[in-house]
Amino acid sequence: MPNRTTQEDQALADALTEANRPSSLLAQFGPERALQLDSGAVLEHWQIGYQTYGSLNASRSNAVLICHALTGDQHVASRNPITGKGGWWTAMVGPGKPVDTDRFFVICANVLGGCMGTTGPASTNPETGKPWGLSFPMVTIRDMVRAQAHLLDSLGIDSLFSVVGGSMGGMQVLQWAASYPQRVFSALPLATAAKHSAQNIAFHEVGRQAVMADPDWRGGRYLEENTRPAKGLSVARMGAHITYLSEPALHRKFGRRLQERSAPTFTFDADFQVESYLRHQGVSFVERFDANSYLYVTRAMDYFDLAADHDGVLAKAFAGTKTRFCVASFTSDWLFPTSDSRAIVHALNAAGASVSFVELESDKGHDAFLLEEPNLFATTRGFIGAAARARGL
Amino acid sequence: MPNRTTQEDQALADALTEANRPSSLLAQFGPERALQLDSGAVLEHWQIGYQTYGSLNASRSNAVLICHALTGDQHVASRNPITGKGGWWTAMVGPGKPVDTDRFFVICANVLGGCMGTTGPASTNPETGKPWGLSFPMVTIRDMVRAQAHLLDSLGIDSLFSVVGGSMGGMQVLQWAASYPQRVFSALPLATAAKHSAQNIAFHEVGRQAVMADPDWRGGRYLEENTRPAKGLSVARMGAHITYLSEPALHRKFGRRLQERSAPTFTFDADFQVESYLRHQGVSFVERFDANSYLYVTRAMDYFDLAADHDGVLAKAFAGTKTRFCVASFTSDWLFPTSDSRAIVHALNAAGASVSFVELESDKGHDAFLLEEPNLFATTRGFIGAAARARGL
Repeated sequence: MPNRTTQEDQALADALTEANRPSSLLAQFGPERALQLDSGAVLEHWQIGYQTYGSLNASRSNAVLICHALTGDQHVASRNPITGKGGWWTAMVGPGKPVDTDRFFVICANVLGGCMGTTGPASTNPETGKPWGLSFPMVTIRDMVRAQAHLLDSLGIDSLFSVVGGSMGGMQVLQWAASYPQRVFSALPLATAAKHSAQNIAFHEVGRQAVMADPDWRGGRYLEENTRPAKGLSVARMGAHITYLSEPALHRKFGRRLQERSAPTFTFDADFQVESYLRHQGVSFVERFDANSYLYVTRAMDYFDLAADHDGVLAKAFAGTKTRFCVASFTSDWLFPTSDSRAIVHALNAAGASVSFVELESDKGHDAFLLEEPNLFATTRGFIGAAARARGL
Repeated sequence: MPNRTTQEDQALADALTEANRPSSLLAQFGPERALQLDSGAVLEHWQIGYQTYGSLNASRSNAVLICHALTGDQHVASRNPITGKGGWWTAMVGPGKPVDTDRFFVICANVLGGCMGTTGPASTNPETGKPWGLSFPMVTIRDMVRAQAHLLDSLGIDSLFSVVGGSMGGMQVLQWAASYPQRVFSALPLATAAKHSAQNIAFHEVGRQAVMADPDWRGGRYLEENTRPAKGLSVARMGAHITYLSEPALHRKFGRRLQERSAPTFTFDADFQVESYLRHQGVSFVERFDANSYLYVTRAMDYFDLAADHDGVLAKAFAGTKTRFCVASFTSDWLFPTSDSRAIVHALNAAGASVSFVELESDKGHDAFLLEEPNLFATTRGFIGAAARARGL
C-alpha cells in the first residue's frame, strides 16, 4: 500500500499478529471439539481469544458473559493491545461497576469471524499456512454462540449467571437464551433486535461494497499480497458511524461548525467539524480492524433472524424458558429502534418469560449503550442485583 | 477502466457529449454575462442546458421554474437522452398535471456544476480545451440561482409565476425567494431545509470519500485519462439511496426477502432483495452521472445555510417579501424532516409572509416528493390554482 508510514505499517503488523496470537487469554480447540457451522462447514482447528475479570466462585455460579458488538473485542474492561486505549465498556464493567467484577467472574470473548485472536478470515488456515481470507466459511450469530459455549465447556462453566450485550452483542444474548436456555440464568439484550431490518442490511451492504471496491482488497487476498483496503474500509466505517449516532447528537456535537477556520474554503477539504470527525473515525478504525472480518461479521448480523429458526414465530425461540430477561432500548436509537425491542418483549411475554423492559431517554443514538448513561447503569444494577439475590449470590 | 462493456462505453461517451452539447435547449453566455460566484471566481464563458414545456403567454406572466434535486436534470417531463426513460417528474409536470403545461410555460434548467449541459466539472474549460475537473470553481446554491436568473433574463422573462422544487430543488426555491423576491410571485419548497444538517453533511462526505477513494478517480482527472471512478460513485449512490427511502418503505418493498433463492448462500452474493436493488441503483447511476459533478453538487448542498447569509436570522432572508409560499414535508422523510420545514415556516411567519404549510402523510421517505402522492398533487393544485387566480391567470 503506497503512502503508508512506518507507524501505520507497525500497527497493521500488530493487528495481524493479534489475529493469531492475541494479547489475551487463548483457548485452542482441535478435532475433538470441531466447530460445526450453520453453513455446513466444519472448523477442525480453531481458537478463541478471550479475557476474564474477577474470580469464579466455588460453586461456579457467578460467571457473566459479555458479548461484544460488530467492531468490539475481548478487551471489555482492560487496555486494548492495538490502540493502547482502555476497554470499550469500562463504564459498565469493572470493580464496583454495574457489572461488578468484585462480585462476578466476567468473561468476554472475541467473536468467531473476528480479528483479535478468535478464528476468522485474518487467521492462518492451518491446512495452507496462509490467511483464510474469503476461503473462511461464513459464520452466523448462532455459530458465534456455539463457539462461546465450547469455550465455557473448556473452562468448566456449566451455567452463566448472566449474558449481557448490546447491538450485535444483544443478538448473541438472545441466541444464547434460545440455544442454551438451561445455561442462562439471566439475560440483558440491549439496543438490539431479533432480526436485522432491511435498512440495516442495506447499510451493511454499502459498507461491504466500499471494501470490495478498493483494488487493494485484492479479492480478499490483501494479507498475502501485503496490501490493505484501507480507503474502502475507512469509507465503510464512516458510513456506519453515522448510523451509530443520532441527528440530535450530531447537531449538538458538531452542528454546522467549521473545522479550525472562520469561513468555508470552497474546496473539498474537511471544512466542517463533522467531516473531520468522520474522516478520523475511518482512519483510526483501519488500524485496528481487519477488512475481511468486517465483511464476515456484518454478514452474520444480516443473516440473524431468530424467529426464522423457529417456524417464523419468535416466541417459540423462548418456549419454556426460565431465564430472567431485561430488555432495554434508547429513544434516539434509529438503527435498533424501540420497536425492535418491543418485538422481543412481546415474544418473551407470549412465551410466559420473566421480562422487564425499559426505553431509556437519550439523544445519543445507538451508541448510547456504550456511553455514560446513568439510567442504563441504574437499570442494570437493579436487574442484576435482583437476579443475584434470586440466584443466592 | 477494465471490464467495461461496449454498451457501457457508449453510455459514458454519451454522458460526456451531453455535458457539453446537451440534447436540449442551450443558452451560452460570454464575458458580457460573466457569472460571479460566491467563491470569488468568475466564469466568463459558461452555458445552461434547459428544457421548456408549454407556451409563454403574451404578458410573459405564466412562467414556472422547476428546480431539480441533486441528481436531477432539465428533463423534468420529457425523455432523458441518456437513460431513454421518461422525465423525472412526469407525475407533477405535464398537460393537465398539477403544474399544468397547458396553462404554464415551464422551464427546467440543469444546475450549475451539473453534467447535463450546464457548465460543470465535466464541461470543457474553454481556456485549456480539457475538462474542468477539479479546477472548476466551487459553486453554491446561490450561484445556481444566479445562473438561472441570467437564463431568464436572456429569455426575456422578468417575473416567475412560480418556482417549484423538492430537496435541493427546494433550497433553490428558497434562495430564489431570498435573492430575487420581486421576481417570484409564488414558491413551493418541498421536502427541503434552509440549511443542511450535520447528519446530511456527514452522509454527503461519506459519498465524496467513496468517490475519491477510487483510484480511477485519478485526483479528479479521470475524463482526461479515460477512466471512470465507477465503483466509488456506485458506493456513494448506494449509501445516498438508503437515505432517500424510509425504513418502513424498505421493509414493505423488500423486508428480509431473498433474491431469487430459497435459502441464504452463505457467500457475499446479493442474497437479500434489498442488496440486489441497491447494487442496481449504484450501477445504473454511474452511467448517467459525472462523479466530479456529484462532488460539487453535494458540496453546494452542504454549504447551503440561508440564515448565515442574513446575520444568522432566517426571517431576514424573507423581509418584506410579497411572494406567496406553500411549504410541504412528508412524515417519513428523515433526511429533510418536518422540523426543517417548520423552521422555514416560522421564519416566513416572522417575516409576515403569506405561507401555507402541510405535513403530508407518507411512508415513502424523502423520495415521496418524486412519487405518486395524491395529497401532494392536491396541495399543489390548490395552491397553484389560488395563486393563478390572484395573478389573474
